[in-house]
Amino acid sequence: MFVLVNLKAYPCDPVAVAEAAADVAAETDTTIAVAPQAADLAAVAETGATTYAQDVSPVEHGSHTGSTLAERAAANGATGTLLNHSECRRKLADIDAGLDAAERADLDTVVCANNPEQIAAAAALGPDAVAVEPPELIGTGTPVSQADPDIVEDAVAAAEAVDPSVDVYCGAGISTGDDLEAAGDLGATGVLLASGVAKADDPRAALEDLVAPLA
Amino acid sequence: MFVLVNLKAYPCDPVAVAEAAADVAAETDTTIAVAPQAADLAAVAETGATTYAQDVSPVEHGSHTGSTLAERAAANGATGTLLNHSECRRKLADIDAGLDAAERADLDTVVCANNPEQIAAAAALGPDAVAVEPPELIGTGTPVSQADPDIVEDAVAAAEAVDPSVDVYCGAGISTGDDLEAAGDLGATGVLLASGVAKADDPRAALEDLVAPLA
Amino acid sequence: MFVLVNLKAYPCDPVAVAEAAADVAAETDTTIAVAPQAADLAAVAETGATTYAQDVSPVEHGSHTGSTLAERAAANGATGTLLNHSECRRKLADIDAGLDAAERADLDTVVCANNPEQIAAAAALGPDAVAVEPPELIGTGTPVSQADPDIVEDAVAAAEAVDPSVDVYCGAGISTGDDLEAAGDLGATGVLLASGVAKADDPRAALEDLVAPLA
Amino acid sequence: MFVLVNLKAYPCDPVAVAEAAADVAAETDTTIAVAPQAADLAAVAETGATTYAQDVSPVEHGSHTGSTLAERAAANGATGTLLNHSECRRKLADIDAGLDAAERADLDTVVCANNPEQIAAAAALGPDAVAVEPPELIGTGTPVSQADPDIVEDAVAAAEAVDPSVDVYCGAGISTGDDLEAAGDLGATGVLLASGVAKADDPRAALEDLVAPLA
Repeated sequence: MFVLVNLKAYPCDPVAVAEAAADVAAETDTTIAVAPQAADLAAVAETGATTYAQDVSPVEHGSHTGSTLAERAAANGATGTLLNHSECRRKLADIDAGLDAAERADLDTVVCANNPEQIAAAAALGPDAVAVEPPELIGTGTPVSQADPDIVEDAVAAAEAVDPSVDVYCGAGISTGDDLEAAGDLGATGVLLASGVAKADDPRAALEDLVAPLA
Repeated sequence: MFVLVNLKAYPCDPVAVAEAAADVAAETDTTIAVAPQAADLAAVAETGATTYAQDVSPVEHGSHTGSTLAERAAANGATGTLLNHSECRRKLADIDAGLDAAERADLDTVVCANNPEQIAAAAALGPDAVAVEPPELIGTGTPVSQADPDIVEDAVAAAEAVDPSVDVYCGAGISTGDDLEAAGDLGATGVLLASGVAKADDPRAALEDLVAPLA
Repeated sequence: MFVLVNLKAYPCDPVAVAEAAADVAAETDTTIAVAPQAADLAAVAETGATTYAQDVSPVEHGSHTGSTLAERAAANGATGTLLNHSECRRKLADIDAGLDAAERADLDTVVCANNPEQIAAAAALGPDAVAVEPPELIGTGTPVSQADPDIVEDAVAAAEAVDPSVDVYCGAGISTGDDLEAAGDLGATGVLLASGVAKADDPRAALEDLVAPLA
Repeated sequence: MFVLVNLKAYPCDPVAVAEAAADVAAETDTTIAVAPQAADLAAVAETGATTYAQDVSPVEHGSHTGSTLAERAAANGATGTLLNHSECRRKLADIDAGLDAAERADLDTVVCANNPEQIAAAAALGPDAVAVEPPELIGTGTPVSQADPDIVEDAVAAAEAVDPSVDVYCGAGISTGDDLEAAGDLGATGVLLASGVAKADDPRAALEDLVAPLA
């Protein structure tokens, strides 16, 4: 099972969360990736945690001020990236170009989308994984696996029909081990979460609870 | 064969082009749609020409200033719309929502994309048609069917694999009857063009030449 | 006093609102402009009402699919345009280019902004008018002149300091004659409103009530 | 004189450029700021060079995936930021909110703009500095001070009229000490450059040549 903790722009300590993620991942058979602000990639990667960018720009080396160049994310320790998160939606052509950029920099890719149709579209672009996250559930604490289990099963089927090699993750409202188990039962091979860990009083305890079913 | 003439923001007379399109379409077994500026939709539709919007916004009725509401495009005579033209690229989620908006307003939909991967993604969203237009060929006068025939065949195959009910058009550099015939030979069932007609000294003659192989 | 009724993407009859606006304006010493969807500009202008675009694109004639070309807005009867409405925010450089486009097409211009600092910035670009509309009050029914009178007075002062020839309007929550009078007392020479008229059961009665203090 | 070296997404070694900048700045009475990719901020700041972000997002702490949070730029060593570079143009409201974000994080601010009107608008938002960079000259090697000296003098006058406390820099085509001196003669108190240093075979020599007139 793959777990991605998106730190967004939360006022958490990215290194503390990353250290907890590295420790908890080592104790279980789980990959726990941490996606900090771009400026924090190097510090997060130094903890030994799997490190993801929150986004990379659809550009190559060149005159692109304010971009997040995949090559510099990788040079600072990222081994993967989210693309098209619902808070960072991209044009179709730019998701495609972002995947090209990630491939050049040898980053794993997770393309987010809202519903099974968009999941199929995202899968057609050839990422390593897609993640279905109904925007209306993000940050609610109500897990998608409970609020709308069909959307996860339909997303798994939609991606499978387009490209069976693409992994399907789910997100939105995930915070407990039960949520993670339910996601797996619906066919997801990974989960995305954010506030459930990043805003927890004790991120390590939150992560331990999350992956307990995998121990 | 479906022919769409995109008037973009060209300084042409939209009504004159539409009248020519209506006449030439009537003389052949062809649908010739004209896509004017939104402000010109009603005048173009009044000519009897098939009328398309250049884009519709991913919104429903509500507080959306500066939008192009699908319902108002339809009320002014549009029966179809382009979406995600390379000069009007949209976020993946907004192409999806634009398709929903078009469906509510009973508009036919043509989603543009740059390459076969994006064509597959577009087809997964369930439009009536997709159109492959390599951006580097737009406005060049070199037809895609000649400069890069593989991209058209690959686009046809990519859409077919995702959803065989989706038509595949091609664009970029199309201006003559030979170009149109070549597009058909590669598996396209329609063509998009713009400057070849809209900037022609005699748009009617340009259209007649274009559809001559269909007569 | 200048009154602009923004029809946004509301499900109203744009011609009926425009006819009411034309009649009520004729009965009072007021300009009442109606800003419909671009596709409805011609029908609205035919009523004789002062007609505004909700936005024009920062482009000249050329290859710009999905744009709203100022020249075509004008050709269909618009005599003015909003720019940078809070639901249609533009890049600084594009407000500047939109003003150039409007000037080429001989359209009057109203640039919207959120607060006095942005009003000063907008005024520096040389529009005919600026309009202060705190986003948090739009659509509330609580008029800005009551909820935050200082912001209107500060906006008037900020524009005056940069360019005294620029008119200052205010919007957000305006619906009654009292609101209009209060706006004038704070130094505004016009008001923007939307739902108060466009969503009224009787738009004509709403407009008559609005301009009663001017009769 | 203030010198900012924008590394954009160039394939240079950001640490090597920063070390050169720190050394050359120490040898002269000049501030030489280096603006790397966000992911490289910490490594650049560790060299002792003055470190700028290329952009910060118009957001506070919260759910903002893919943003560049001013607070994290500052925590990783940035002491200033560009905003609204011509390759990273922002909405007027977002420049305003980006300035608020920078102020919260105690970052100095340089707002870029294309022409004197936009410079006046930018100055009205209260940044520490504005920078006039005609987009058509960026990357040309022809300095703005030579190609269009009036635009620099007009920008200085425009900013002065709005807020005399705002510094005015100029950019586009700057690479030599002569260019820097010419910029100063036109009233600029700083220069922005990029390829002239970042793509130089010997960035240190390029910087030494640039600041020679200040020695």
